[in-house]
Amino acid sequence: MQALEQLRGRLAELSDLGAMQMLAGWDQLVMMPAAGAASRAQQLGTLARLAHERATSAELGGWLEEIEAAGEAAGLDELDRDIVRLARRDWARARCVPDELAVERARAEADGQESWQRARADDDFKAFIPALQRNVELAREYGECVAQAGESRYEGLLGDFDFGLRTDQLRRVFGALAQALPPLADQARVHSPKRTLEVPVAAQQAAVAGTLRRLGVEDTSWRVDVSAHPFTAWVGRGDSRLTTRYGDGDVESLLSSLHEYGHALYERQVDDALDRTNLGTGTSMSIHESQSKLWENHVARSPAFAEVLAAELGAGGFSVSAGDLYATLVGVEPSLIRVSADPLTYPLHIVVRFELELALIDGDLAVADLPGAWREQMQRLLGVEVTSDALGCLQDVHWGAGAFGYFPSYALGCLIAAQLWEAMEAELGPREEELRVGEVVPIQRWLAERVHRFGRRLDTMPLVEHATGRPLEIEPFLRYVAPLAG
Amino acid sequence: MQALEQLRGRLAELSDLGAMQMLAGWDQLVMMPAAGAASRAQQLGTLARLAHERATSAELGGWLEEIEAAGEAAGLDELDRDIVRLARRDWARARCVPDELAVERARAEADGQESWQRARADDDFKAFIPALQRNVELAREYGECVAQAGESRYEGLLGDFDFGLRTDQLRRVFGALAQALPPLADQARVHSPKRTLEVPVAAQQAAVAGTLRRLGVEDTSWRVDVSAHPFTAWVGRGDSRLTTRYGDGDVESLLSSLHEYGHALYERQVDDALDRTNLGTGTSMSIHESQSKLWENHVARSPAFAEVLAAELGAGGFSVSAGDLYATLVGVEPSLIRVSADPLTYPLHIVVRFELELALIDGDLAVADLPGAWREQMQRLLGVEVTSDALGCLQDVHWGAGAFGYFPSYALGCLIAAQLWEAMEAELGPREEELRVGEVVPIQRWLAERVHRFGRRLDTMPLVEHATGRPLEIEPFLRYVAPLAG
Repeated sequence: MQALEQLRGRLAELSDLGAMQMLAGWDQLVMMPAAGAASRAQQLGTLARLAHERATSAELGGWLEEIEAAGEAAGLDELDRDIVRLARRDWARARCVPDELAVERARAEADGQESWQRARADDDFKAFIPALQRNVELAREYGECVAQAGESRYEGLLGDFDFGLRTDQLRRVFGALAQALPPLADQARVHSPKRTLEVPVAAQQAAVAGTLRRLGVEDTSWRVDVSAHPFTAWVGRGDSRLTTRYGDGDVESLLSSLHEYGHALYERQVDDALDRTNLGTGTSMSIHESQSKLWENHVARSPAFAEVLAAELGAGGFSVSAGDLYATLVGVEPSLIRVSADPLTYPLHIVVRFELELALIDGDLAVADLPGAWREQMQRLLGVEVTSDALGCLQDVHWGAGAFGYFPSYALGCLIAAQLWEAMEAELGPREEELRVGEVVPIQRWLAERVHRFGRRLDTMPLVEHATGRPLEIEPFLRYVAPLAG
Repeated sequence: MQALEQLRGRLAELSDLGAMQMLAGWDQLVMMPAAGAASRAQQLGTLARLAHERATSAELGGWLEEIEAAGEAAGLDELDRDIVRLARRDWARARCVPDELAVERARAEADGQESWQRARADDDFKAFIPALQRNVELAREYGECVAQAGESRYEGLLGDFDFGLRTDQLRRVFGALAQALPPLADQARVHSPKRTLEVPVAAQQAAVAGTLRRLGVEDTSWRVDVSAHPFTAWVGRGDSRLTTRYGDGDVESLLSSLHEYGHALYERQVDDALDRTNLGTGTSMSIHESQSKLWENHVARSPAFAEVLAAELGAGGFSVSAGDLYATLVGVEPSLIRVSADPLTYPLHIVVRFELELALIDGDLAVADLPGAWREQMQRLLGVEVTSDALGCLQDVHWGAGAFGYFPSYALGCLIAAQLWEAMEAELGPREEELRVGEVVPIQRWLAERVHRFGRRLDTMPLVEHATGRPLEIEPFLRYVAPLAG
């Protein structure tokens, strides 16, 4: 069928353009000389514009119509049916946004990031109000546009990151976390207190390299580089690139390199047959985050794998017992900053943001009242006093960049990781003995089979159910953190 | 005028796509894990196809027509007139090639490179004949297509690399070189014999880094990396990337890094106003090669700059006198291989290739007779016996990759470099004293003013005349090599 061939040709082109955006973004943060920034911004703009133009073209809509009109006669196999289904969904979502709104949002997001940067540096929330206000308004308008039948504006926004999430579901899950976690945190800060471990950079580098090598990271199809903020890029089949950073006197690099490894492994293990289609990448932000959190929380932060990490640090010339290292990696202390939060209190930072962004979008919270509401929530959920907006509601770039509906995926990732881990252990048996010697192949295989290979064929919640046999639950995560509370 | 704006928008887009091709190519050779090759080939194919599609679109032709029809009323300034002139030329050249021919050529070039690789490895010219034959036929057909009125097929082919070159002119210039150089080579191999100098890699690395730093290569807008074959990429304003390689026991890295520096400097010094237009890059292969050869032959291979290079090697822990280093960098010995030829005999390797490719395209030489003709010419011009086709007519990839008309630029580059150098010294005075202390700013400025800033606004020969006040001559090059013959 010619329309199907044309559609698949266009989707392959869009996949290649996406890979070039990934490469140009990676290069910008890892390799590019600083003076190349202005040119790179223009080049990225051109790639994005071209990709958008060709993803929303009338001819693509024509091919879809032709294929759909043929119905059974088109003789599509299951894979092609999924390709057409997602192509229709993506096309409809992109087409329903008026050009002027898209342009306005792009401008407001750029302005917002700039304004946020200055406001945070000056700890001056007032200066940020106009730009944030504009982004809230445009997000509401945009959410309205893209919401499916029966969805709220906020659910429309969620759909950009996690298609099909419902606000009620988030309220229920996050409400339960808000009940269960604070008392656990109180116990854990005593039972598993925060500790520091001063590890020289050279030993961290050796340990990161040695650990990643044990997980299958070899030079022929991986790169490991350094960047200001760790991230992962998948530039093509057999081309996975993760970055990390090394601070003197901490062990963040051990956690963050396994975190990024989880993102990279997900993309690597998508079924080859989906390559260069619209299904050939991770399905959502939540599932992506579940993959990074699985390796960060359940592997790197396990007592068993601490033996491997301690051995690798030892090979790098730094001596520490597995027990001390484990205690450092899991120490609990409620704090102000999300990105450096411990594994137990981390989801509470997200609950704060979810409730506030939902209120902003629903019109129940005025932008000017955000700092006060932030302080209240931090006090209520984490028991900490917010001493400045820079360390409070100005700490994250997301809202200033127009990204509403993004935060939930961070906490959902923690929950899904725990649920997947339990399902995997129920099936394969406890991982402890194998993790102690760094054996992870069965984990990689189970994830490939149950999660990775599907690419975008299953959305977040259906994938969780398919992989674990149950809808999303918070209990596995609570069972994961329980030992920290003693 | 709206059509002009649309045209300039499209040209900016094409410039950005070109930069992304440059980046993806650089990354492939310098950074990419090996297993990413298949994806990268597809990505590069998509970028090339998209760029071609948008460079040859009917709408672009429509904008040109509209602008041209408006004539004086369009009110174009000089820059816009050049933009429109070159856009018309490029569009017409690209449009006159039938799609089937373009597809056939792409396929034959890919096959040809593969076949060449095997044939060279096996020293089996016969196995290469069918693929080469096919590329010759398609090149003839293509040359016919793109030849301007009054041009031959071969001149059509030349136009892809150096617009406006005439075969007669090349015959005359290369004929004169074929007369003048062999007797000089005979004397030079005695007076300036080839020498070797075993320089440890670490000292070469230090010397390359130190020398490039003196030429203004700093981290904020340059990268210097290692790759199997040295090359240069210009990814954007303020983003120049050159590569080099280090062999144990030679000094090639000193020459090749200055060679690549010359290419990079040319692109860096194109007038900012031409950025993201169709004029914002180097004008031709010959002029590009003249810029690399100027730094390689006239700076790196000068007795004065040898003092800088010797000092930088000394700082790297390797002691050599400037005189000995200079003698090593210029030693003459006729040999079989073009890429490692000395500065005096190098152009003779090109004369051989020019005469043979012209005969292939004109139909005066059968592909099967190429090895014999090659041996004859090498004997006649360089006085060397070709001991195998692998070291003879199979040594270069160009013809197997369908690139006929490319070789002349290598020799023209040597000639133009010498002519520019003389014109510059006539104007600024001898460079010797300044080169001795590594002062090159006046050279950079003169090149920017006379050559670089024009981008594509002047073609090869008009640019030579404009910069030097004379048409292309061989005498400056002969004067440059004369001291080697004593």
